Order: sequence, then C-alpha cells, then structure tokens
Amino acid sequence: MQASSLLESARVARLATGDARGRPHVVPIVFAWRDGVVYTPIDLKPKRHADPRRLRRVRNILEDPRVAVVVDEYQEDWSRLAYVLLEGTATLLESGAERDAAAALLEEKYPQYAALPLAGRPIVRVAVEKMSSWPAER
Amino acid sequence: MQASSLLESARVARLATGDARGRPHVVPIVFAWRDGVVYTPIDLKPKRHADPRRLRRVRNILEDPRVAVVVDEYQEDWSRLAYVLLEGTATLLESGAERDAAAALLEEKYPQYAALPLAGRPIVRVAVEKMSSWPAER
Repeated sequence: MQASSLLESARVARLATGDARGRPHVVPIVFAWRDGVVYTPIDLKPKRHADPRRLRRVRNILEDPRVAVVVDEYQEDWSRLAYVLLEGTATLLESGAERDAAAALLEEKYPQYAALPLAGRPIVRVAVEKMSSWPAER
Repeated sequence: MQASSLLESARVARLATGDARGRPHVVPIVFAWRDGVVYTPIDLKPKRHADPRRLRRVRNILEDPRVAVVVDEYQEDWSRLAYVLLEGTATLLESGAERDAAAALLEEKYPQYAALPLAGRPIVRVAVEKMSSWPAER
C-alpha cells in the first residue's frame, strides 16, 4: 500500500514522544492527516486526567516537541507489510480556527465523536518534517 | 481485554526508541512475550541493511537502551479500546542460548518464519521494568 493511501485509510496510528531526559513513550492514537500535518485529539481519558497537561504524552510534548508517528496495518501476508514513519514537531492547539478545523476533520473521519464531542478538547498538531516509507516506494 | 491476553494474542506491537539526542523513532514489530521480556527479531530488511547495526532502531538502542513498546488492537467500538505500555531496557542478542530460545518462540508464534528462518539473525531483548494498562484493570 502506498504511503498516501495508508495515511488516508488507517484508523489508528502510534505516537512516540520523549521526556526532557529522553525517556521514550508510545501510545495508540486516532488521527487525521491533512497537508503534511497530523492532528490527534486529547480525549478518551479517565477523569483523573481532566487536566490534559497531566497526560504523559502532553507533558512530554511540552518538555520536548520532537515526536514520531507510525502508521501501519498488520497483515499475515508479510509480503504486503508496509508502514509510514512521520517525524516532526508537536504543538498543543487549545483554541482557534486551526483547532476547530482539525476537530471537524476528526469528527468527519470518526463517527464515534457524535457521542463524544471534541468541543473544548485540545488537539495535538504535528508538523511533519520528514516522511519515510517502508518498503521504499518505487 | 486484559493486559495479559493482549500480550499473548497480539500479532504486532510498536517499538519506540530514541537516539543519543533524544530524537524519537517508532516502528511496528513482531514480537514474543515471555516472563516479563519482549523479544523482537531484526529481520524483513532490504539488502542495504545487511548490517543490522545500521538500522535506526538498533543504532538507537546502542546509543540509549531505554525503550517503550505499546501493544494494542484498534476497534471501532471505542468502549473496548485497550492498550498495554511496556517500558524497559533493550539489549541486542547476537548469539547464545537465550537468543536461540527467543528465535524458537518467534518461529512458533509466526508460521511465516518457516520461509524466512531466523537462524543467524540478532534479536532485541527488552527487559520490562514497568507495565501500564489502559484502561486500568479492575
């Protein structure tokens, strides 16, 4: 599968961050992809994390904004395995036009948000600086 | 799904590493889990990476052995979403009894290795020091 198809079709990705001391962390994320930017909401959290800044992925991004996102779909036919690695810089969008447009994109991609509105939730924006695919595209 | 079931049943995980400067990297991996250790082979590589030390995940582990592995299975029913985050220290097993036992575990889990034998391939060993589940187990 081509990188662009994978970015359009995948329902889940994984976000890797590190803290100020470089300790790695990785979580599954839902995401939307547009114009070289990955958007992923801060949601689905237990109540003790009502403050998104307490979430480890958010704390890490505030300590070190360099992140990596991998998009892949596992298949038992290993000749068809593929992934896209996106490396970039993350920022937290708490309000504004870009946050609202990203929320609309996510709500369009994931009908689940009809029951869990994104209104008021921050969105992580990853400006992608480097994209690598495996296998390399021909 | 409970963490232990996910670790036993998942066919793929994602491995996050960082380089000496803390730049994050993440890739999908096949893996086996036994006794608090994750084993993942160095394989499926294009010929230009015949030397496994040139692979970025391997270079990173040699620069900074702290790693994180996430095991999850995406479902459209978000009430059933779950993941296990494993944090630990990675080493590269190039030979020896533990490498051979890990290769046997991987070959048992993945019938694909019948056609792609692991003989001679290094295996990354992650000694897990911390395991977190989401949602928290009750």
